[in-house]
Amino acid sequence: MAGGVFYLDVREFFPFWEALTQEHREDIERHCQQRRFPKGSVIMPSKGDCLGLMMVQSGQFRAFVLSDSGKEVTLYRLYELDICLFSASCIMNNIQFDIHIEAEQDTEVLLMPSPLFDTLMNQSIDMANYANQLMASRFSDVMWTLEQVLFKSMDSRLAQVLLEHARNAQSSELSLTHEILARDLGSAREVVTRLLKYFRDEGLLELTRGRICLLNEARLAAIAG
Amino acid sequence: MAGGVFYLDVREFFPFWEALTQEHREDIERHCQQRRFPKGSVIMPSKGDCLGLMMVQSGQFRAFVLSDSGKEVTLYRLYELDICLFSASCIMNNIQFDIHIEAEQDTEVLLMPSPLFDTLMNQSIDMANYANQLMASRFSDVMWTLEQVLFKSMDSRLAQVLLEHARNAQSSELSLTHEILARDLGSAREVVTRLLKYFRDEGLLELTRGRICLLNEARLAAIAG
Repeated sequence: MAGGVFYLDVREFFPFWEALTQEHREDIERHCQQRRFPKGSVIMPSKGDCLGLMMVQSGQFRAFVLSDSGKEVTLYRLYELDICLFSASCIMNNIQFDIHIEAEQDTEVLLMPSPLFDTLMNQSIDMANYANQLMASRFSDVMWTLEQVLFKSMDSRLAQVLLEHARNAQSSELSLTHEILARDLGSAREVVTRLLKYFRDEGLLELTRGRICLLNEARLAAIAG
Repeated sequence: MAGGVFYLDVREFFPFWEALTQEHREDIERHCQQRRFPKGSVIMPSKGDCLGLMMVQSGQFRAFVLSDSGKEVTLYRLYELDICLFSASCIMNNIQFDIHIEAEQDTEVLLMPSPLFDTLMNQSIDMANYANQLMASRFSDVMWTLEQVLFKSMDSRLAQVLLEHARNAQSSELSLTHEILARDLGSAREVVTRLLKYFRDEGLLELTRGRICLLNEARLAAIAG
């Protein structure tokens, strides 16, 4: 407890907590420390910020890449209960890319220092497999982004369909399920849900149960092309 | 030995061979089998081809994604001594993308069936960490591709891809169609043809049917940046 906010316990982040040895559990509880990143701060693991595994208790991170000319592209976002793996990338062999991590809100994390994470990776098969799963999740996020960038038809089609619904309803408040949109697009519901969340994160719309509220029709129209 | 070709032993693929238990070593030697993929065959792990870990003894794989409209984009290639992890993606949680793997030449692999790989991942910390390293390598490959697509101009990417093909072929005479280059770049064949003609007019290469001969690799490297 701090400032009236309940912080997630370190155990919440490891589904295999009970399978860890007593010694590893004690190491984790002793060495994981709370840390706060003010909104706007940026962590650059490849530039020396190899802090360790960051377990998000509250707030929001955005992972992005940056071109030589300063162009940024968002790869994925991390929210409460997510774990940021690449802030420990220095201890992972074969990670050969520069990722930037920005706190998009004031963000509280539990930090497992890199040396402890390294030790656990080499001593706990549960931790090693868990790191594998985390990497697979981030890999899937990046593949999604890549496919959007490469093929880019679905987001413009979704934007178009949303604007059509708004025009038909003569309202920017739409009573629409993701299922309906998926059918409109001939796509899977999961794909539509993912895209809608992406649009929400970009501030284009609000999502509530069974409703979608368009916030920026001009930008949606630009995406629709 | 077969047909005069020396095939890599399974031990060559696991740097931690001696650290495995006797039982695991015997399991690997008993269950890994040689398999041949004729040039042009395509493996689709998400469509049921979850064969297992493929250790490349000879030949060449190309991993690519495919859009709804049939557009292909090359993610990376695997050569002798490389290991294909995503042909075992069904046993990895959180892999949520469809990758296609094409044999670009007749390709011989040692195949570790998915159930054995699964068992080893759950029993051998060395195997779990090795899988982690393999995934990190492929992640880095995909990040490189993403950054190329996001940030680089088409002419520098084409120059880069030509130089890579020359390095892999150990020759400046390349047997390459414009189609193959277009897939490598995620671009249209017409765009590639136009750029190749521009390079030819600049004296950087010669074009003949199905062949591209690099004439000035230094200048191509400068364009590649």
